[in-house]
Amino acid sequence: MSVWISRRPQADVEADLAASRAAGGPLAGLRLAVKDNVDAAGLKTTAACPEFAYSPERDAAVVAALRAAGAVVVGKTNLDQFATGLVGTRSPHGAVPDSRRPEFISGGSSSGSAVAVATGEVDIAIGTDTAGSGRVPAALQGIVGIKPTVGVISTDGVVPACESYDCVTIFASNLDVADRAMAAMASGAAGRTWPSDARLAAPPQPVVAIPDELPELDATWHAAFDTTVARLKAAGAQIITVPIAPFLAAAKLLYDGALVSERYAATGEFIDGQPDAAVDPVVKGIIAAAREHPAHRLVSDRREVARLRDEAMTHLAGADALLVPTAPMHPRLADVAADPVGVNSRMGTYTNFCNLFDLCGVAVPAGMAAAAQFGVTVLARAFEDAVALDIAALITGDESRQQAWPLAVAPNTELVVFGAHLLGGPLTHQLTDLGARWAGEVVTAPRYRMTAMDTVPPKPAIGRVPDDADGTALTGQRWLLSPAALGRFLAQLPAPMQLGKVELADGTWVTGFGCDGAAADAGRDISAYGSWPAAIAAGQV
Amino acid sequence: MSVWISRRPQADVEADLAASRAAGGPLAGLRLAVKDNVDAAGLKTTAACPEFAYSPERDAAVVAALRAAGAVVVGKTNLDQFATGLVGTRSPHGAVPDSRRPEFISGGSSSGSAVAVATGEVDIAIGTDTAGSGRVPAALQGIVGIKPTVGVISTDGVVPACESYDCVTIFASNLDVADRAMAAMASGAAGRTWPSDARLAAPPQPVVAIPDELPELDATWHAAFDTTVARLKAAGAQIITVPIAPFLAAAKLLYDGALVSERYAATGEFIDGQPDAAVDPVVKGIIAAAREHPAHRLVSDRREVARLRDEAMTHLAGADALLVPTAPMHPRLADVAADPVGVNSRMGTYTNFCNLFDLCGVAVPAGMAAAAQFGVTVLARAFEDAVALDIAALITGDESRQQAWPLAVAPNTELVVFGAHLLGGPLTHQLTDLGARWAGEVVTAPRYRMTAMDTVPPKPAIGRVPDDADGTALTGQRWLLSPAALGRFLAQLPAPMQLGKVELADGTWVTGFGCDGAAADAGRDISAYGSWPAAIAAGQV
Repeated sequence: MSVWISRRPQADVEADLAASRAAGGPLAGLRLAVKDNVDAAGLKTTAACPEFAYSPERDAAVVAALRAAGAVVVGKTNLDQFATGLVGTRSPHGAVPDSRRPEFISGGSSSGSAVAVATGEVDIAIGTDTAGSGRVPAALQGIVGIKPTVGVISTDGVVPACESYDCVTIFASNLDVADRAMAAMASGAAGRTWPSDARLAAPPQPVVAIPDELPELDATWHAAFDTTVARLKAAGAQIITVPIAPFLAAAKLLYDGALVSERYAATGEFIDGQPDAAVDPVVKGIIAAAREHPAHRLVSDRREVARLRDEAMTHLAGADALLVPTAPMHPRLADVAADPVGVNSRMGTYTNFCNLFDLCGVAVPAGMAAAAQFGVTVLARAFEDAVALDIAALITGDESRQQAWPLAVAPNTELVVFGAHLLGGPLTHQLTDLGARWAGEVVTAPRYRMTAMDTVPPKPAIGRVPDDADGTALTGQRWLLSPAALGRFLAQLPAPMQLGKVELADGTWVTGFGCDGAAADAGRDISAYGSWPAAIAAGQV
Repeated sequence: MSVWISRRPQADVEADLAASRAAGGPLAGLRLAVKDNVDAAGLKTTAACPEFAYSPERDAAVVAALRAAGAVVVGKTNLDQFATGLVGTRSPHGAVPDSRRPEFISGGSSSGSAVAVATGEVDIAIGTDTAGSGRVPAALQGIVGIKPTVGVISTDGVVPACESYDCVTIFASNLDVADRAMAAMASGAAGRTWPSDARLAAPPQPVVAIPDELPELDATWHAAFDTTVARLKAAGAQIITVPIAPFLAAAKLLYDGALVSERYAATGEFIDGQPDAAVDPVVKGIIAAAREHPAHRLVSDRREVARLRDEAMTHLAGADALLVPTAPMHPRLADVAADPVGVNSRMGTYTNFCNLFDLCGVAVPAGMAAAAQFGVTVLARAFEDAVALDIAALITGDESRQQAWPLAVAPNTELVVFGAHLLGGPLTHQLTDLGARWAGEVVTAPRYRMTAMDTVPPKPAIGRVPDDADGTALTGQRWLLSPAALGRFLAQLPAPMQLGKVELADGTWVTGFGCDGAAADAGRDISAYGSWPAAIAAGQV
């Protein structure tokens, strides 16, 4: 039972689940596993090192947030010790094997969390991810793993691995549940402020980059990757090819250079001070070596990472995301035992560079290949988590989703549209180009009128009727967009269109389209149709 | 003549100045000195180490930008070698003495540049600033030094000192010239993107924090600092006191910890490889020691800087800026010779922490004290360079300035207002709270009408007249604000006000106030007054 390091009594879990279902909440009744490098009050935090164990007084910020949303902690899961590894074998509690084929690895370092979700023991699980620990095991276990932009989810109460790059992640069996859990986790304070211009959605026809070469990729997985690319294309994505070399070069620097000294800064003193502790010999070797690098080498390695990042980002300039295989292969436990560092290193080929380059990622299942579960990751720029999510949804075939967890935290505002900016309209692209997210239909209070103006393209003018006149309830659509996007949209809006407050049927006032009065008066009254599409359908425009 | 390391022939300079005056440009006819760690084509770059010298093929980005704006390079100035020092004495070309009292230091490391401006040999000079090199010599020489937010001005063609924190700076005898030069320098590409919500002005009554203690400050300078604070207060600033301890603790880390290893990464290999080069012994000692730090110490020191920064920024949360003495004292050359490291370290008390904490700063003269020129620096958060500039202008007594160099690069848009948001109006604060900058009066095309509405506070409704009707030219005011500020302004704008395009007298269309037609029609026509203030003055509102 190497999945778990500690568990709460089953009866306590059941009682909490019943209470959670009764109380409600976005995650009501969901069972939660917590990787054992993240604090959950009432259970020890060990990072898979018994001598490192401590009893946290309070939940990590993310655990508290998930509990507040209704999730119930089941227990703490096994991991590659100190989150140092991508294999799931580096633990004194034993290797966590694959959930389906026990001679294979689970992937790590969030091994127990991923397997607990894959076997259905829990609904969601917290992982962490520095070099791929929240993605590689998701891929091998056929589940979803969301790795947010570095710094936007609190790491308070998380044992550091490599502090500049550590992220808390979520595993779930599908994108929707993972997304909801991320929204809950995001609600707490975190260090990094969302920009005022974050895109809140992928464009309808996103540009997705794929690597020009796929080194290390298992031969049987090439076809699976091609199938995924074809699915994306069929869903409307444009595919471009980019040189993968700068990404892979940075991936190598994460362990081969001085960057690893952050791992010594995190746990080195503990390991040096406890020579008899049950420290995994491979982990011990990595962290001991990390002690020896000179600081000026760290400076020059970081400079090299920055240079490679600039090069990589130049290649990605025209793309919304980069699609990569999550892991290049699915090794056996024996393969890892035979070459623990080499196999681990190859497992990080398509994950190690991500946090170094300040990318976010969504790992999703992409079918089976030669009995192994194949997974891909959609990587996007920092703060474009919603873009990565939307493109991942094109792969999983999830229907058009209005949810995207960044909406819970990224500054956003709304805009109600009535005419050419409705979904499928001739000017919709002005909103989607700005990263606006469609958020459903709305109906105004019955205090408005609509006239058809002779603009190009034709547009309706929406105006409030005088207080003593009869008005109409008009149907429009709501979009969510960043404050900067709203400002930019307004700055490019031509006369006679104007933006101001519109009263909805429920009495709330939202920002939406209006019009200069003289231009509105000059149009033909088409209020009776109730909406612009209805007026068009009736041949009135 | 230790100010200059190399100079162009005087005849060439004169010819270029004449050509520049004829061609025009924002810096036409201005003489420019370039610190000798910044490339200027045609002159060697030495960083004050003859053996390090090379002949650059092209100008540094900032030199090219200043020349394009009309500035004429006079020569390359002396500096603390490799920009390592705040004293101006660490150079094989000799110490650069104070411009007025030759037994005193000039301050460094941009010693020659500051003195060349102070003596009037040039109008503007390029400096660099990692720990205070663009501020300390400005203070001691009684001139202005602008130290922008790290990363927003290109350092291409600049010899690195401590790459994460290096900035290019400008010296000039007054704020206006320095500001114009910064605008020119900023026009080139730089690595760090301006956010979409940068404030473009200080609020009219800024909150300025001052230190709770002023350690190291020369006793005769305390009164000068108090006088500056009183001047700010008289100009409308609110003064609050904050604990200075976390700032000073970080200042000490810049040299006492492993952060200095960046200096080894920059020039250490050159120095190690050229044991016979004319390397200043103090500089050599600092850089050699920088070789020895382990990388994990750099990691933990950076973590400590981040912790101190969080603490310091919490103290500053309610303030627009922090005012500090720029330098704590004005040492004699002999004082530095007696204790070269100790005096230098004390000189950085109020400057060292700035770039570590990602602050921008404007150093301005603040009078004389005991025959020495006293200076203060206004420090503001990253990308709030315009805020620092405006508060510095309150100290120097410069009149209300519409210019602020971030306007040249920070995303910004305009908004024309006609009523309650005019300067001095009851809702002006809604704009200034968002960092909007006043940008003068405008007059519309004669196609508008204005009605007075019974809102609270009273507001005018501006509407375009029908094409066949007579309209009026209305006077309003233009504000500049970030796209996010415009979006946020719109999101909080109540009905019946609307924003859209307004035609100006010159035929351009700008974003400005409109109104829902029915509400506008319900008001009293006051177009004849031509502006809202005129209608108020006539007792019509």
